[in-house]
Amino acid sequence: MKNKFAIGIDIGGTTTKFGVVDNNGKILEQDRILSNEHDEVGQFIDDIYTKMQPMIKHAGGIENFIGIGMGAPNGNIYRGTIEYAANLRWKGIIPIADMMSKKFNLPTRLTNDANAAAMGEMLFGACKDCKHFITITLGTGVGSGIVIDGKIVVGHDGFAGELGHTTIRPGGRLHKGTGLHGSLESYASATGVRDTAIEMLTHYPEETSLLRKYSLDELTSKSVYECAMKGDKIANQIFEFTGQILGESLANFVMFSSPARIVLFGGLTKAGNLLLNPTRKHMEQNLLPIFQNKVELILSQLHESDAAILGASALVWDLNKN
Amino acid sequence: MKNKFAIGIDIGGTTTKFGVVDNNGKILEQDRILSNEHDEVGQFIDDIYTKMQPMIKHAGGIENFIGIGMGAPNGNIYRGTIEYAANLRWKGIIPIADMMSKKFNLPTRLTNDANAAAMGEMLFGACKDCKHFITITLGTGVGSGIVIDGKIVVGHDGFAGELGHTTIRPGGRLHKGTGLHGSLESYASATGVRDTAIEMLTHYPEETSLLRKYSLDELTSKSVYECAMKGDKIANQIFEFTGQILGESLANFVMFSSPARIVLFGGLTKAGNLLLNPTRKHMEQNLLPIFQNKVELILSQLHESDAAILGASALVWDLNKN
Repeated sequence: MKNKFAIGIDIGGTTTKFGVVDNNGKILEQDRILSNEHDEVGQFIDDIYTKMQPMIKHAGGIENFIGIGMGAPNGNIYRGTIEYAANLRWKGIIPIADMMSKKFNLPTRLTNDANAAAMGEMLFGACKDCKHFITITLGTGVGSGIVIDGKIVVGHDGFAGELGHTTIRPGGRLHKGTGLHGSLESYASATGVRDTAIEMLTHYPEETSLLRKYSLDELTSKSVYECAMKGDKIANQIFEFTGQILGESLANFVMFSSPARIVLFGGLTKAGNLLLNPTRKHMEQNLLPIFQNKVELILSQLHESDAAILGASALVWDLNKN
Repeated sequence: MKNKFAIGIDIGGTTTKFGVVDNNGKILEQDRILSNEHDEVGQFIDDIYTKMQPMIKHAGGIENFIGIGMGAPNGNIYRGTIEYAANLRWKGIIPIADMMSKKFNLPTRLTNDANAAAMGEMLFGACKDCKHFITITLGTGVGSGIVIDGKIVVGHDGFAGELGHTTIRPGGRLHKGTGLHGSLESYASATGVRDTAIEMLTHYPEETSLLRKYSLDELTSKSVYECAMKGDKIANQIFEFTGQILGESLANFVMFSSPARIVLFGGLTKAGNLLLNPTRKHMEQNLLPIFQNKVELILSQLHESDAAILGASALVWDLNKN
């Protein structure tokens, strides 16, 4: 049987993951490189190409591959370009799908990294039976993918679904990357949780907390989680506040597209109910009655490091259906 | 030629408008009744039926009609029901499409009133050439219709697009109808403008203003507009503030679905640039660079009292295409 594999590539702000995926959503092999250690995007592609060669060979050669699916920050599905991505080293507009396609001699499709994750959920994850859902990635930043009637929402120019940058506290915390104030990402990301920790520790100097033992460098969303699990009051308040902000934002999203399900995803979700419970509570509180108690709020069922590659490869399987 | 007319009915919180529409979007005749003067929804339907009879006769009889399109608050397109509409007298779930269909012996389609307006813009108004847009009705309340890829977004249960109820000032002004705090509707509606006027006049007692001459009963968005046009400082600040809130909300909506166009609609838009200028400014300020200077913000081209009927009838023409 020919054409049974796809290459999935997920370009993140820190790491680029890539691998061989079969049409059942199984990753046969995978590897990773740092996204920002190459001066030129051409070198970056060469590096992936070299590292993919043994994997392609194990899968029976390039003729067994249908194409390459890529997810990247500010990836544009219409143009196959990465456009002005704040976290990547290559500036301006990068025609990466074309470059990749020429290098591998395979059709290549690119989309936003968060949209790729949503594709993964729809084809292989928690949303196989669902046509209306939103995925929210709570990592270093906050990404989102919106599915309406079984289709990823890309909008008139391919950039739809930047929910992490919507404002939920007008005039609030400055996001250093975007210059916007009070965006969801400035609160409900790993960075945001750390900033909330610093704010709360400064704001309540009389309150004892295990978090005070950490240096600024050591203070991460992970240390906040560990302290919260030990019963630390401030650490718990940090998750309560993060969940409130996230829940209020989710209520807004629900009243936009009325999804049946919201799938949370990414590093912060390891906090589990510490985050989920306040999020659910504040989402429900901010919904009109016609939306209340209807939306399933769940964690992704995909293994985190796999999800990105699966999601990217999903673009190719989707292509194959047409 | 048979089946060349549709009945368009727009049920509003105050008035219900209805008329005969041809397939070029021309309203041949129209009439209106008060929405809430009937104890029973059956009497309401009987009243419309009676008033429609001469119009149907002038159009050559019922056999020339393809169907009835209706817009109503909390109208559900999947079920043809009005569900728990806060502004209507009939409570609970009203199977109005079925009732209307039996009375007139015509297929009847129902949707949310704001979605009907968006249909009207797409078929007969400012968005004939546009597949990605959002309409916002700034009237007594704030309604919205979202179009993605040429389709109205209704979501998994038919209630999508309640953008007036999204939160833009968490913990802000109480909306008496919904109990929510800081929703767009509590600021950017006619009621909201009046509330802002009262707040500002109370908050700056030393500031002279023409608005102080009006009794509370006389103080409306119209009187604020008239005073602003005369150069009144507080009246101008009221529109500046309203535009800021609206602009911030629109920025959030743009980052959701990336529309090419946003069409404003309803009584408040009579303020023209007094409202449009601050709205545009604050929308652009709150967008990521990839969205800036791309979205057209315009006023509806449809005559206001016609738009609602046209929009409702559009449901039927859309039905005919399938």
